[in-house]
Amino acid sequence: MTIGAELDGAIAARVRDSFARQGLMAHLGVSIAELGAGRVTLRMPFRPELTQQHGYFHAGGTSAIADSAGGYAGLTMFGPADEVLTVEFKLNLINPAQGDCLEATGRVIKPGRTLTVCQLDVWGVTGATRRHVATGMQTLIRIPGTGTEGA
Amino acid sequence: MTIGAELDGAIAARVRDSFARQGLMAHLGVSIAELGAGRVTLRMPFRPELTQQHGYFHAGGTSAIADSAGGYAGLTMFGPADEVLTVEFKLNLINPAQGDCLEATGRVIKPGRTLTVCQLDVWGVTGATRRHVATGMQTLIRIPGTGTEGA
Amino acid sequence: MTIGAELDGAIAARVRDSFARQGLMAHLGVSIAELGAGRVTLRMPFRPELTQQHGYFHAGGTSAIADSAGGYAGLTMFGPADEVLTVEFKLNLINPAQGDCLEATGRVIKPGRTLTVCQLDVWGVTGATRRHVATGMQTLIRIPGTGTEGA
Amino acid sequence: MTIGAELDGAIAARVRDSFARQGLMAHLGVSIAELGAGRVTLRMPFRPELTQQHGYFHAGGTSAIADSAGGYAGLTMFGPADEVLTVEFKLNLINPAQGDCLEATGRVIKPGRTLTVCQLDVWGVTGATRRHVATGMQTLIRIPGTGTEGA
Repeated sequence: MTIGAELDGAIAARVRDSFARQGLMAHLGVSIAELGAGRVTLRMPFRPELTQQHGYFHAGGTSAIADSAGGYAGLTMFGPADEVLTVEFKLNLINPAQGDCLEATGRVIKPGRTLTVCQLDVWGVTGATRRHVATGMQTLIRIPGTGTEGA
Repeated sequence: MTIGAELDGAIAARVRDSFARQGLMAHLGVSIAELGAGRVTLRMPFRPELTQQHGYFHAGGTSAIADSAGGYAGLTMFGPADEVLTVEFKLNLINPAQGDCLEATGRVIKPGRTLTVCQLDVWGVTGATRRHVATGMQTLIRIPGTGTEGA
Repeated sequence: MTIGAELDGAIAARVRDSFARQGLMAHLGVSIAELGAGRVTLRMPFRPELTQQHGYFHAGGTSAIADSAGGYAGLTMFGPADEVLTVEFKLNLINPAQGDCLEATGRVIKPGRTLTVCQLDVWGVTGATRRHVATGMQTLIRIPGTGTEGA
Repeated sequence: MTIGAELDGAIAARVRDSFARQGLMAHLGVSIAELGAGRVTLRMPFRPELTQQHGYFHAGGTSAIADSAGGYAGLTMFGPADEVLTVEFKLNLINPAQGDCLEATGRVIKPGRTLTVCQLDVWGVTGATRRHVATGMQTLIRIPGTGTEGA
């Protein structure tokens, strides 16, 4: 499977359905910006409810969308009944998290039967300007489905 | 300074004031549970607005309170006008994040003039039962104040 | 199993045997200092062949013994035919790596059927003085044995 | 400065000189394969002295060359008297570390006055075949020189 290739409709529907069940994503105002095979981008518009003490986006929000983007990037490559869990992630916060919105992209670097590794990147977007605000890495584990639950 | 020792009142007030300005902490319903020198615990009660797709706490919330707990643990050891930024953090999610609330403790392992390293731990708490749900490590940078701003 | 408890003789022999097959450990002059259930300490005496450009221990040696200590700490908790692989590790280098020797301790924080998480710590030891030079975290994966190979 | 651009001769000489003083690099048989602005590749041919228990390259060697490659990538972007230290790094080991040699590339993602972040990648190389064996991230700190020591 080519990373970034167009997603099968059933897989895309499954990701959108799972995303819609994440209470935190709705609470933070996050939406899916792009869905591709092994690559997912989430978008979170700025709101005062998302800030740290200096009025920028809080690193907790940055990491929430980075983690979700990576998890769904992995999920696009799994079987129809499989689930995904984050094993661990690491994030370097390299620029102030400012902008009209943040966009987080998770991209599968190494798919695997048990473990999958993703690159995580977050940008602060203001109009046509994009600034790289965080970069990281994530390890996911595939939880095999029963084979019927996805039917 | 002994890690966990009682905090000077002015420093405690400064941490509480900064915490109160973090829009995300209020939006997630987080409060300060314990403030000590180089050790801070935050508490986040369960709400459906904090969940991932299976109804547990979302890792984004887990990492938000872990990151804030560590940042404030570091801040307690800085000068009165200094600020703190997270350079990077890494979190291993070791058990399902379930419970009446999550409690995140940041604890300074290595204070430094420029960089400070914290241990991060998060527990799921249900009544008297505490389960270790995440453990991690964080690097903070001290942003020296002007010497007047804290006065 | 209690972390640090005395190891069964057969498991200890298995760890020593595996360690003896690691060409790099011999090449770096590393020996086993302590073997317990879920806790292993390795020791690496100072030699000019282990230095970075300022004459301290090179971080590569520090991470080599930290990684091996953690891997063997995990292996002590697996079945007799299982193998262990490092999934990932992260190390913060918190003080100059100086001393007559370095000692690295890997300690299991979260044992698991598939994944095991270890805390990694490295000290610079000079006589009775121990200085904490690195701290980190490691994720291991158990590779199940055939059930006969350990017989 | 463009990442990967040709290096000024004086900076290249400084990196080679520092590298030559790293006892561990000689002991592991590592050489500099490529030097560019903000991008350095090191090469380590296979030897039994570099193995783990299954005869592959030990993760300690993998991380030693990854760390050095990143450190020197950062150093190429600093002033002539500055020094570099690794603050922390994280490495995911994504395929067995096999091959005639390992090649590690460190590439600056975010240069900074105090902190610099590098991407780390390691390949196992056998003839014309390259396999990605590790990927990671590293935080470096610039230690400002006195301004005379590099003269």
